[in-house]
Amino acid sequence: MIREYLMRPCDIIVKKRDGKNHTEEEINYLIEGYTNGAVPDYQMSAWLMASFLNGLNEEETYYLTRAMLLSGKTIDLGFIDKPKVDKHSTGGVGDKISLILAPAVAACGVLVPMTSGRGLGFSGGTLDKLESIPGYNVNLSETEFVEFLQKVGFVMTGQTDEIAPADNKLYALRDVTGTVENISLITSSILSKKLAEGTDSIVFDVKFGSGAFMKSKEDATKLAHNLTAIAKKMGKKAICVLTSMDQPLGRAVGNTLEVIESIECLTGPGQSDLMDVTSILGAYMLLAGEVVESVEEGEKKIREKIKNGEAFNRFIESVRTQGGNVEAVLHPEKFQSAQHSLDIISHQNGFVTMINTESIGTASMYLGAGRLSKEDFIDHSAGIIIYKKIGDFIKPKEKLATLYYNRTEYLNQSVRLVEEAYTVEKSKASNFRLIHEVIQ
Amino acid sequence: MIREYLMRPCDIIVKKRDGKNHTEEEINYLIEGYTNGAVPDYQMSAWLMASFLNGLNEEETYYLTRAMLLSGKTIDLGFIDKPKVDKHSTGGVGDKISLILAPAVAACGVLVPMTSGRGLGFSGGTLDKLESIPGYNVNLSETEFVEFLQKVGFVMTGQTDEIAPADNKLYALRDVTGTVENISLITSSILSKKLAEGTDSIVFDVKFGSGAFMKSKEDATKLAHNLTAIAKKMGKKAICVLTSMDQPLGRAVGNTLEVIESIECLTGPGQSDLMDVTSILGAYMLLAGEVVESVEEGEKKIREKIKNGEAFNRFIESVRTQGGNVEAVLHPEKFQSAQHSLDIISHQNGFVTMINTESIGTASMYLGAGRLSKEDFIDHSAGIIIYKKIGDFIKPKEKLATLYYNRTEYLNQSVRLVEEAYTVEKSKASNFRLIHEVIQ
Repeated sequence: MIREYLMRPCDIIVKKRDGKNHTEEEINYLIEGYTNGAVPDYQMSAWLMASFLNGLNEEETYYLTRAMLLSGKTIDLGFIDKPKVDKHSTGGVGDKISLILAPAVAACGVLVPMTSGRGLGFSGGTLDKLESIPGYNVNLSETEFVEFLQKVGFVMTGQTDEIAPADNKLYALRDVTGTVENISLITSSILSKKLAEGTDSIVFDVKFGSGAFMKSKEDATKLAHNLTAIAKKMGKKAICVLTSMDQPLGRAVGNTLEVIESIECLTGPGQSDLMDVTSILGAYMLLAGEVVESVEEGEKKIREKIKNGEAFNRFIESVRTQGGNVEAVLHPEKFQSAQHSLDIISHQNGFVTMINTESIGTASMYLGAGRLSKEDFIDHSAGIIIYKKIGDFIKPKEKLATLYYNRTEYLNQSVRLVEEAYTVEKSKASNFRLIHEVIQ
Repeated sequence: MIREYLMRPCDIIVKKRDGKNHTEEEINYLIEGYTNGAVPDYQMSAWLMASFLNGLNEEETYYLTRAMLLSGKTIDLGFIDKPKVDKHSTGGVGDKISLILAPAVAACGVLVPMTSGRGLGFSGGTLDKLESIPGYNVNLSETEFVEFLQKVGFVMTGQTDEIAPADNKLYALRDVTGTVENISLITSSILSKKLAEGTDSIVFDVKFGSGAFMKSKEDATKLAHNLTAIAKKMGKKAICVLTSMDQPLGRAVGNTLEVIESIECLTGPGQSDLMDVTSILGAYMLLAGEVVESVEEGEKKIREKIKNGEAFNRFIESVRTQGGNVEAVLHPEKFQSAQHSLDIISHQNGFVTMINTESIGTASMYLGAGRLSKEDFIDHSAGIIIYKKIGDFIKPKEKLATLYYNRTEYLNQSVRLVEEAYTVEKSKASNFRLIHEVIQ
């Protein structure tokens, strides 16, 4: 009677608990309150669990995304008279696509304002990879971000605490309360961060499979539909490309190893799967930026810019501009390598039909290439090179992979994980497909 | 691989989120951790919401109850060679039954070790009622508790922080995270507290209706089955009597007013509904204590002990022993009364067919008799006397109720609530029934 006119966090929790839909006002109240500390963690986590289990509809997800975006600073790139398109991957194992894609797209005349994250668990992060290049600075100020983008054509940096602070707090809370794997919460987290950086359009690499956060194509499709729908409501163009993460991308897993493989891709004939994913994502970025008229034209252009060295030149320019050691990039053999290596040998005879990709990512993490918890330090030189992939024939005593490492603490676990990741069968029957549908 | 052998709160949350059942070890880990601070509020509230929405089965509720019971001190009354039976009501409006029942049962030779709570929201609490008696001490030490129980035959006190501390923390958290109204969580909360006091058996007055926490008979029945099942697993006898809370019990609502009505019941002809509920609950307590052989014999004995004054003598003895003013009890007109009173007058003609009992409780709270939040102070003299109940015929200008108060801040709301609580119809058609089934 008296308090019924005041909005209370508990009433908002009860509403979602009982399966009802929130108003815009309720979502704003919750997110503003959580950002400024008026709504405590313990109420937010109860609401997160209720939302996880009872769901947030499209309207609610839109309100949530916008409230999270508006919780912090947003960058306006509207004054730059060129198309601006970003790419975002939902994360995987061996996913160094950004390092090849961003310079290639920039070389085609589309600006790429890219903010990235760090690796956690089995999944790698672009910032960690970039920091394998001595001196490369991923902590740019807003002024540097805008300046470097115009100068180089693409820019890669970490997100500051000023961008979508609600998401920083919420993500940390979701991480410890079992509320990460929800389509609506994932969508609002990704979009609130990405849209704050001032891009016009985003191409999403939505990964699914044993080495992705989304294990099934069904979940990945749902996420893709959600991402495009909410991005459109926010007034941005969004295209989702569904790709498989049922084996590592390329051959290298681990930070320095992946940078070297990216350089190989930009300078010589790269691994075909890396080239395929790069060209399809690049094509959609060029389409979104309206510099090509078809996917085919876009793919051709991306491959051309890589082949003729323009993409690599952009990459070197970025390394120079962001303070990195250009010598290392020009002579990858100068990168610091791990002290130890160990070959994983096959005991079987037959075709590789499956690779548990999360196990490969986890093995790499245990070697020091990743983090078990956010506070862990990583070893840039650690990682794994994979020699056998799906469809390959293997004989006993053949090399499946090589582990590179300095730390030996969890070596046994890593060896076991890589050995057990491989499924070998007599027949080649595998329906592995790298690039699936496009949702826009 | 490495951390999989360690139990982590987040994994336990995820298990319940995904609808799986907990092991005994997991529940113990969670409750121990929460009690000692290792598991933070924000993880506990996520688990509570997951448990609320996905449910806890009988086994899990038993583990939870036992873990909460064992989180603190338990009192052992095994050395006292007499039956010990407690009563617990799930709460209602005008429910002063304990004050009449405990001395009557004690007079029949069954000890009643009773710990009670305070009122919150529309519902009253026995401790607040007892404190209307000047000097009556409800903060007894364990030694006093045991001594007074043996001396008087019954004892009434508040729960100390040492009893089931896990429940104290959990209840406060549930209150602000929308996780109160869940049968399993309610069961574990009630039983962990009640079983710590050393009783052999408990008779539950499970209330349902507009003035109870359980609005439907269906929910009350579920709670009753859960309470008896879990109590049995804990090695205790439990009997649940389902009673209606679709109108206030007796005529008085508010602390001093209810004490006076209880004294009237113990000394003269009491309100028939109070006498009916007291005698049925008392009969089951005597049955549980094995001093009678049938419900009929039990009811007769309870009514006898009230009629012959033995129950009232026990009540006086308790007031004296617990430091209360016996003079006030012997001369109820000496109780401090409220400064103001206001009659609520009928504008209608017909039979009372319904009373929104939560509204009556809320009106009494606004007059000062209850608490909106735990920190509020209460005014013992405030409250309401109801003159018309279900089935009564009313004419325009007749008195429906009188409000007693000192605070006038929310007087208008109280008046409106009481006026609107009454439904009056031309025909007497009401299927009101006070005492429903017994579940044991």
